[in-house]
Amino acid sequence: MDTKAFLGIQAVSTDDATRGKWSMVVRPGLVTGGSFLWGGCGLAAAVSAIEELSGRTCVWATAQYLSYARTGETMEVDVTLAVVGHQITQARAVCRVGEREILTVNAAVGERPFEHAHSFVQMPDVPLPAALQQREHRGDITNTIHEKMDERFVIGRELEDLDGMPNDGRTLMWARIPDVIEGVDTATLAVLGDFVPMGVGQALGVRGGGNSLDNTLRVVRLVPTKWVLLDIHIQAVERGFGHGTVNMFAEDGTFLATASQSCIARMWREPK
Amino acid sequence: MDTKAFLGIQAVSTDDATRGKWSMVVRPGLVTGGSFLWGGCGLAAAVSAIEELSGRTCVWATAQYLSYARTGETMEVDVTLAVVGHQITQARAVCRVGEREILTVNAAVGERPFEHAHSFVQMPDVPLPAALQQREHRGDITNTIHEKMDERFVIGRELEDLDGMPNDGRTLMWARIPDVIEGVDTATLAVLGDFVPMGVGQALGVRGGGNSLDNTLRVVRLVPTKWVLLDIHIQAVERGFGHGTVNMFAEDGTFLATASQSCIARMWREPK
Repeated sequence: MDTKAFLGIQAVSTDDATRGKWSMVVRPGLVTGGSFLWGGCGLAAAVSAIEELSGRTCVWATAQYLSYARTGETMEVDVTLAVVGHQITQARAVCRVGEREILTVNAAVGERPFEHAHSFVQMPDVPLPAALQQREHRGDITNTIHEKMDERFVIGRELEDLDGMPNDGRTLMWARIPDVIEGVDTATLAVLGDFVPMGVGQALGVRGGGNSLDNTLRVVRLVPTKWVLLDIHIQAVERGFGHGTVNMFAEDGTFLATASQSCIARMWREPK
Repeated sequence: MDTKAFLGIQAVSTDDATRGKWSMVVRPGLVTGGSFLWGGCGLAAAVSAIEELSGRTCVWATAQYLSYARTGETMEVDVTLAVVGHQITQARAVCRVGEREILTVNAAVGERPFEHAHSFVQMPDVPLPAALQQREHRGDITNTIHEKMDERFVIGRELEDLDGMPNDGRTLMWARIPDVIEGVDTATLAVLGDFVPMGVGQALGVRGGGNSLDNTLRVVRLVPTKWVLLDIHIQAVERGFGHGTVNMFAEDGTFLATASQSCIARMWREPK
């Protein structure tokens, strides 16, 4: 399936060339362990709708998370193309469950001729996913997004290694969504880019993580790949909030995209 | 003066506890060489209004730039506090000149108790600003933002060194706004964080730069400082767009904030 089928997002109506409505049911497999929509899936749905209405590929998109959408709820995605230029469209999408605003996405999509192109970020030298093991999760992942993802640590701490000592802030992980056989697009990267909260627990070395305040994605260049290498850097945890970045690479080494995020840092609620 | 006075932003009216209106005239000294509002000043104005209405300090803010505000025009800033929680407020601000939307800002502000705090990013070992020279500009900077800023390269190419060869993507520069004697706040960091477009020209080694699509600021921790060290990393220039980050440090080495940005990459228009 493609990412639209994976997300279950469907066009409802198009008012005119600059406004449209999409809808998706928050299905099991799109949610966190807390049974609410995985932030990256929200950004993915919005960007996917924006790309469809505009006919252009994402350059940059930011989601602001305002509330939670729970399993079984229906989320409506309202897209507005605010400025449509010759090469670039500036867009926004508001995602709601009933009257409740779940997230707002601002984005720029397009393509421009420019005589210079260069990637200044190199993929680190890492083992291939086939040589690595699936990472362990703390709880049952049935009916969560993690059931739909393969996640293999290159640099990462398993649960028993969370010793309360901060490391250098870096987590390296291969990830893929096996259901999405059409290849990696912007929406896939949005789903896979939502790992700063996990990185916060990894960086601090604690049984914790966070809830996203935002999710910012900058798409450099798309090439066919199944696995995506996530090079996660936590920059700081201060005032109760974590901040970090995720550089994303294709199997052939292409620098695909970079994501960044701030989150509410939280310890896990442990069973008593 | 403080940053509000520097920006010339004034409260117009407060409709209730969650909505308010501010206004500023786009004065000379707040604009680029093209006589339109410096993007960072737009983000600064919006965040400053959000912080004032909410009574809370910025954690994260993103500006989407939709149009240009020109010197002499009056920009209205409409703030809405969308979700007000015990510790965090989620807000947005829409900035307009007449009916024209200039920028939209989404932000989270607040403070939370959390038992862990750590900075994973270290300030590089650099000479102090007093030991460095003011960087040269390509044109007359009278009545532009650059007239109001001190900018001193630690790692940077002067005009004659733009040889068309990409480097490793890094530019290091001390910057300050001497008029703002009240010390560095979120708004100052928003103004100073808007250097990814300059970094694009530096990284490629070309007489070029860019126009911001967005400006994303993540505030780690504020401490008193006059100068701010900008550690600018361009990640990629592809499809006609540049992407990069700016880590910001105080004189005492504190990691203050991190900014990121995508921009339309452009060569300078040279006089014929």
